[in-house]
Amino acid sequence: MIINFSERAHNHNFELDPIVRSLLDTDFYKLLMLQFLWKHFRTTRVTFGLRNRTAKFRLAGMVRREEVEAQFEHVRRLRFRRSEIIWLAGNTFYSTRGIFEPAFLEWLEKDFRLSEFQLAEKDGQFELRFEGLWIEVTMWEIYALSIINELKTRAALKDMTEFELDILYARAKTRLWEKIERLRGVPGLAVADFGTRRRHSFLWQEFAVEAMHAELGPAFSGTSNTFLAYKHDMEAIGTNAHEIPMAMAALTDTDEELKAAQYRMLELWQQTYGGSLQVMLPDTYGTTQFLQGAPDWVAGWTGQRVDSKDPFVAGDEYITWLRGRGVDPKKKLVIASDGLDAQEILSLHAYFMGEIAPGVSARDFRDAASFHDERMWRPERRIRFSAGWGTLLTNDFRDCHPRGEDGLEPISLVCKLIWAEGRPAVKLSDNYLKASGPKHAVERYRRVFGLAGMANTPIVV
Amino acid sequence: MIINFSERAHNHNFELDPIVRSLLDTDFYKLLMLQFLWKHFRTTRVTFGLRNRTAKFRLAGMVRREEVEAQFEHVRRLRFRRSEIIWLAGNTFYSTRGIFEPAFLEWLEKDFRLSEFQLAEKDGQFELRFEGLWIEVTMWEIYALSIINELKTRAALKDMTEFELDILYARAKTRLWEKIERLRGVPGLAVADFGTRRRHSFLWQEFAVEAMHAELGPAFSGTSNTFLAYKHDMEAIGTNAHEIPMAMAALTDTDEELKAAQYRMLELWQQTYGGSLQVMLPDTYGTTQFLQGAPDWVAGWTGQRVDSKDPFVAGDEYITWLRGRGVDPKKKLVIASDGLDAQEILSLHAYFMGEIAPGVSARDFRDAASFHDERMWRPERRIRFSAGWGTLLTNDFRDCHPRGEDGLEPISLVCKLIWAEGRPAVKLSDNYLKASGPKHAVERYRRVFGLAGMANTPIVV
Repeated sequence: MIINFSERAHNHNFELDPIVRSLLDTDFYKLLMLQFLWKHFRTTRVTFGLRNRTAKFRLAGMVRREEVEAQFEHVRRLRFRRSEIIWLAGNTFYSTRGIFEPAFLEWLEKDFRLSEFQLAEKDGQFELRFEGLWIEVTMWEIYALSIINELKTRAALKDMTEFELDILYARAKTRLWEKIERLRGVPGLAVADFGTRRRHSFLWQEFAVEAMHAELGPAFSGTSNTFLAYKHDMEAIGTNAHEIPMAMAALTDTDEELKAAQYRMLELWQQTYGGSLQVMLPDTYGTTQFLQGAPDWVAGWTGQRVDSKDPFVAGDEYITWLRGRGVDPKKKLVIASDGLDAQEILSLHAYFMGEIAPGVSARDFRDAASFHDERMWRPERRIRFSAGWGTLLTNDFRDCHPRGEDGLEPISLVCKLIWAEGRPAVKLSDNYLKASGPKHAVERYRRVFGLAGMANTPIVV
Repeated sequence: MIINFSERAHNHNFELDPIVRSLLDTDFYKLLMLQFLWKHFRTTRVTFGLRNRTAKFRLAGMVRREEVEAQFEHVRRLRFRRSEIIWLAGNTFYSTRGIFEPAFLEWLEKDFRLSEFQLAEKDGQFELRFEGLWIEVTMWEIYALSIINELKTRAALKDMTEFELDILYARAKTRLWEKIERLRGVPGLAVADFGTRRRHSFLWQEFAVEAMHAELGPAFSGTSNTFLAYKHDMEAIGTNAHEIPMAMAALTDTDEELKAAQYRMLELWQQTYGGSLQVMLPDTYGTTQFLQGAPDWVAGWTGQRVDSKDPFVAGDEYITWLRGRGVDPKKKLVIASDGLDAQEILSLHAYFMGEIAPGVSARDFRDAASFHDERMWRPERRIRFSAGWGTLLTNDFRDCHPRGEDGLEPISLVCKLIWAEGRPAVKLSDNYLKASGPKHAVERYRRVFGLAGMANTPIVV
């Protein structure tokens, strides 16, 4: 056994093990949105804030502040590499070449920078703020989330022996493989990795994505992670997120403008990207009101992503709405992306891609491994369905810890737009309890958009 | 990432990846027996033969003959290393220092050699014969078995991708860890690794043994593998095997001498090793007749290893016999070593180390996870019990193959004494169907020893 002295000396002395290895290590929609912002909101100033919704993990007690700062400073020093820019220019995304304009790519290569960050500690949690031009702030979201998550992972691994680490990963791999095997061979299935922001680590996400790629063949539709798509010749997946309708809503003055902003955003997106990338996210202020008030041309969009509503309900609602607008739902697309795991992916796939038997309900599909039960359905598409598999693909280490500790449980960390040009950013979502923004602003938005179709709304006697 | 050029070039060009890395990579009892043979049977000539009892695996179709030859030639070129001899001289085995005599160790270092081997192919199987002085043939047993088994493993791994290999080992590690966790924390448990001869590979045995060592603490009593004991400061476990009573029986002339040979062997062993290492293997010609006809001094031995009888039954029989000879069984030892897995280890431990409740039978212990059920037993030793965990510790890859193939299933490969000084070697064992030797010789032995207490004996009307 000949020792690799240089590797060993490096391992003992290196200063930083970077979590973000490339500026492409972000969700693809951030790049699409970045170009959109660069075109239409180049001078808009915003604030993003990071928050840990899992209070039981006091992150500032687990991860040293200096480590966070060092990782963040490392990302700020990164630049897009020549080969990465060339790939963005030359690659086909959603079957379209040249989705990124040469002028944007030139800016990305030469002038793109990340804003500064403010890091504080309060009640055992980190308080993070990113302030500045929207085009310099927006990209922080994914870098910040994956850095904090991976530093938390590293902290949990720190006191484990080499042997315990080996067992931990053996268990997690066995678990992951079982899930993927459940999805193997299901006709017409479409599953994508959406797990960048809550991943266990970069390398684990890469492993999970390569596992899906190797095992699922065409049923693996791609990854939201641009760097992995680039590195492994996979499809990059994603279109847009809540931050755009939220900011565009915040920038309006009257209630009428506010209500219209959700459609203006679609119009501007359509104008920017033409016929491709037309997957909307209608839940920012409630999906039901969004669909009811939408202009007819919205029914021409390819599909919608369901993020905060029960996807069985949301898909049915979308199908009904499309039919009401005289559009055949069979060619449209529903993407679910909220807390999915293998079982729900199979159930949703069967529910939307099959014709269910009389008397079988959505609940039957939710609870049973019904895809393989031909009494419950036969493959005949009602609408196209695609799963965006996130945390439970890239960070399911439940019960894998060799000593039964909980430090590897995923946490609900979010990094969101909170101000746009000094005005509060508000999200209502399809879940009453998930509304975000200052109280008075949320109240105003609820008055304007109503509560139609929302879950968990308080009962007013 | 800096490439280790020397390692990579080596990996691409090396001629042989040796399976047997050291002559110590053998069961410890082979070394004890070797010293015994060197003292008492230095000029005795024997033949050992290797046979695959799992006919469905046509080994010669899976493994190239040249690979077998190359590995065998490699072992023949190995010598005991200076540091290994010093360890054998200086280490304490079974709490006894100096178990190996200086003259024997000098011979081992300077003059020990392995006999030649004859390798042929017949009906898709390898035919292997080792002929020569017993002291030059006996050590082939474990080397040959572990080489053939690991070459079979390598053949099964050959067409797997790096990714599939990773999943395979993740599954096997998860399985192994679950087993070991079941054994963790059980009071008074004693488990040793007996899995050298049927291991998946050397490195996998090493992993399994280190896992037990790390997890079970004092409940892990050691390994039969001398090299692993040496490398990791573990106890080396084992005393003797069937080959000695078989040869000593073959070398007798009259029926009376034949019947007495099984006790003469114990006498000679006792004379050689004094008070230590007194664990007998009474099943060579049937345990029941062995105990019935044994001189009283045999009850003074430390214990017995149960190899071919139901260990619940064999243990009870031994307890009753000891009481009949006026000996307290509580201080005696039963070692089970035949096809154990975690569940049976726990059941046997509870059965012998506890006091079972009225109305609870051996079968209840066999079938239930009864160790944790205090209604069934309370810890009060009837006899000391120790488990020799073999194939299902070091080679349980059932259902781990990512494509569901069976090439990694363990096979029943044996390498046994078949001739001693031109006379046939016979074993009857406690299982009628497991008798080995030429038909006429087996018939004579059955006449001499009887069939008392044997399983699967044919019913004669």
